[in-house]
Amino acid sequence: MKAEIITIGDELTSGSVQNTNATFIADQLHTAGIEVVQISTVGDDTPSIVSILRGIQHHVSFVLVTGGLGPTVDDITTKAAAEALRRKLELNKAALKAMEDRFQKLGRPMSPHNIKQAYLPSGATMIPNPIGTACGFTSAKSNTLFFFLPGVPREMRRMLEETVLPLIKKEHPDTELVRTVGLKIFGKTESYCDQALSDLIKEEKEIAFAFLPHYPEITLKLTMRGNDKKFIEKKLKAVERKVTKILGTIIFGKNGETLESVVGSLLRSQEATLSVAESCTGGLITHRLTNVPGSSDYLERSLIVYSNRAKKELLQVPATTLNRFGAVSQETAESMAQGIKRLGKTTLGLAVTGVAGPAGGTSDKPVGTVFISLAHKRQIITQKHLFYGDRSQIKFMTSQYALDSLRKYLLTI
Amino acid sequence: MKAEIITIGDELTSGSVQNTNATFIADQLHTAGIEVVQISTVGDDTPSIVSILRGIQHHVSFVLVTGGLGPTVDDITTKAAAEALRRKLELNKAALKAMEDRFQKLGRPMSPHNIKQAYLPSGATMIPNPIGTACGFTSAKSNTLFFFLPGVPREMRRMLEETVLPLIKKEHPDTELVRTVGLKIFGKTESYCDQALSDLIKEEKEIAFAFLPHYPEITLKLTMRGNDKKFIEKKLKAVERKVTKILGTIIFGKNGETLESVVGSLLRSQEATLSVAESCTGGLITHRLTNVPGSSDYLERSLIVYSNRAKKELLQVPATTLNRFGAVSQETAESMAQGIKRLGKTTLGLAVTGVAGPAGGTSDKPVGTVFISLAHKRQIITQKHLFYGDRSQIKFMTSQYALDSLRKYLLTI
Repeated sequence: MKAEIITIGDELTSGSVQNTNATFIADQLHTAGIEVVQISTVGDDTPSIVSILRGIQHHVSFVLVTGGLGPTVDDITTKAAAEALRRKLELNKAALKAMEDRFQKLGRPMSPHNIKQAYLPSGATMIPNPIGTACGFTSAKSNTLFFFLPGVPREMRRMLEETVLPLIKKEHPDTELVRTVGLKIFGKTESYCDQALSDLIKEEKEIAFAFLPHYPEITLKLTMRGNDKKFIEKKLKAVERKVTKILGTIIFGKNGETLESVVGSLLRSQEATLSVAESCTGGLITHRLTNVPGSSDYLERSLIVYSNRAKKELLQVPATTLNRFGAVSQETAESMAQGIKRLGKTTLGLAVTGVAGPAGGTSDKPVGTVFISLAHKRQIITQKHLFYGDRSQIKFMTSQYALDSLRKYLLTI
Repeated sequence: MKAEIITIGDELTSGSVQNTNATFIADQLHTAGIEVVQISTVGDDTPSIVSILRGIQHHVSFVLVTGGLGPTVDDITTKAAAEALRRKLELNKAALKAMEDRFQKLGRPMSPHNIKQAYLPSGATMIPNPIGTACGFTSAKSNTLFFFLPGVPREMRRMLEETVLPLIKKEHPDTELVRTVGLKIFGKTESYCDQALSDLIKEEKEIAFAFLPHYPEITLKLTMRGNDKKFIEKKLKAVERKVTKILGTIIFGKNGETLESVVGSLLRSQEATLSVAESCTGGLITHRLTNVPGSSDYLERSLIVYSNRAKKELLQVPATTLNRFGAVSQETAESMAQGIKRLGKTTLGLAVTGVAGPAGGTSDKPVGTVFISLAHKRQIITQKHLFYGDRSQIKFMTSQYALDSLRKYLLTI
C-alpha cells in the first residue's frame, strides 16, 4: 500500500515556513501501515501543480494534497486539480451548504471570494472542515484516490483524522498491523543510548529501533509489524521493559507524555504541592507546568522575581546574601527556594537564577551560568549548570533541568 | 534562474523528523534570487533516488541534494548519483585526504566503512565538510549543476554557506536582485487584509504580495525583483507605506520583530515599567516578554496567582470580590491589575484571569472565558474574550491579546 504527498505553496518553495503538514501526514500514514514513496512541494503555479498531479506514479493508491484551497487569488489548487484530472469545475451543493452554515455560525456575511471555494471538480466528494471555511474534497482517477486538504495545519489535521484516515482504512481494511511505542529520553546522547542498547538491537530483529532526536530530548521509537495483534503487543511490551531496564531513569515517559505531565503525575501521586520562584527562565517553568490540565491541583503559585527588589520583598532573600554572593549564586537560589516554599505553604519549593544573556555575563559567571534549587522539608538540593546557546536555549535548558531534577527527586521520596 | 531541492531519507518519508533542511536551503536560494521550482523527498531506496535525479526538469540550473552520504549501509546516495548521472564511482583523492585529516584531528582510527565515503562519481569535485566526516560533492550534467550534501543539518548548513552558495553566485554573477519585506499582522483575517488591499495589489504589479498565515498571526510578504537596487528599495518602501496606511495598527511589526519585542521597544521608548499578574496563562505572558534581551530593564516582576489564596495574599484582591464575582470576572481582573501595579511600583500593571480548561467551565463562564485588565495611573481598561480551542490555544490567545492590548495602549500614551 503506497502513497504520495504533495504540498503546495510559495511559502514552502521560498522557505518562509516549515512544511509541518508533510511531516504530520507522513507520520500518520506510516503509523497506518502505508508507505510514503515520495513527498513533493511546488509553488502556487498552475502548470507546476498540474504537472506534479499528472506525474504521480501508477502504483500509488493514495495521493494527499494540501494547500491552495483558500479564498484568495493565489489559491489555485482546485482549478489545477480539475485540469489535471480532466474534470470540469461545478458548484458542489454539499460544499456550499457547509460554507453557508459556517458563516451563519460565525455571524459573518459570506463574500463572493468564498463562494469560489464551493466549486469543485465534477464527481468530487466534499470533505467537511469542522473549524474553517475551506472544505476539502476527494476524487478518484484510475486506481488512485486523491485527497485535497487546506494548508492551515490545524484544519488539515482535523480533516485528516476525522475523514481521510477512516476512508483510507475502509478502502484497505486488510492493512498490515503496525504498533509503535515511543520512549522519551533526556540526559544522555543518541550515541550513548545506541551503544547501551546495541546487543538488544541485534537480538530483537522483529523490532525496528529508531532514534528521533528533538533536542534536548530523544524519542526511541520501537516499531513492530505483523498480523497477530496479541503477539505484537506482547512482544513490544517485553522489549520496552528490557530497554527501560538498560537505560533506567533517563527514560522519563512514553508516547504523548511530556516532562511536565510526568512531573505533574508524580506530584499528584505523592500528594505533594509546589511553588516556583523563577528568575532567568522568566515564567517558562510555570508555563510548562500549567500546560498540563489540572495543574492547579498541585501548583500553588509562582513568582517571577526579575529584580533584586522583588527577590528581597517577596521572597525575603537577605540583602546581605544578594550583596555578598550576587543574584546568580547558590546562596541566592537556596534562599529563593526556601522563601517560595514558605510563602506558598507547599511541600516543595523550586527556584532558578542565572544569566540568560546575551548581556550580564562576567568572567566567573559567564552567560549560561544557572543555579537550580529544590527545597523539601529541611532538605535543600542545588545544581549548578553552564549552558551554551542563545537566550531562548538557555531559558529552555534551565526549565528542562529544573523539571527533570524535580522528577528525579519525586522518584526518590 | 531555477533550482530543485531533493532530500533523501526514510526518516523524512516516514514523518519521523521535520524536514528543516529543505526549508533552510529554499530560504537561502530564494534570498539569493534563485527560484525553487520543486522540492522532492524520497526514502533510502536506490531506484527512487535514481528516478528522482533523472526526472529533474531541463530548465533547472541547480539541484541541491541532501542526505544519505554517511558511512552506514543505508547511505546509498553517492552510488545512486553515479548511476543516475551515468558515471563510475572512483576513489577521490581530495575526499580521502580530507577524511584522513579529520580522523587524525579527532584522534580516532578511520574504519573501512568510512573509506567508502571517499568514492565519488568520476569527474565530481569534493565539497569540504569542516565539522563532520561526510564530505559532499558537485557534479555537472548537461546544463545542470548537482550539489550533494550530508543530511546532518549543522554540517549541511556550513557547507551550503561556505562552498555551495559562493559557487552558485560565481556561476551566475548577474543574478537578479530580490528584496523582501515582511509585515506582521494580528487581529484580522487573511480574507479581510486581501480585500482591503485588493486595489493596491492590482495597481502594484511589480510587487508580489503573499500572505503567510502562522496562526494567529499573518505575515504579508512583499517581494520585488530587478536589477536596480536603489529603485527596488525605494519602491518597496513606498508600497510598505501604502499598506501600512490601509491596514493601520493591525500591523504590529516587520521582519524579525515579534509582538513581545515590539511591546518591549514601546515600553522602553515611553520609559514605562511593567508588572504582570497571570492566572490562566500560567507564566506564558512573562515567558514571552522575557524572551526579549534586556527585558529586565522594564519588567519588574510577575506573579502567577493560580490559587485564590495567592490572589488575596499577594495582590490584596478582596475576599468579597472573589466570593461575589468569582476568580474569573472583570472585578477580579481589575483588582489584580491594580494590585500588581501597586506591588511592583511600576507605570503599568497587566493582569489576566480566565478558564483555560478542559475543566472548570460553567454555563455563564464557559471554557475560554478570559478577562484582561491593564492599569495605568488612575485608568483601568478591561477586555472580555471568549476563546475557542484547547488549553494551550486558550493560553496562547490570552497572551496574544494581552500583549496586543498593551501594545495598542502604549501607542496612545
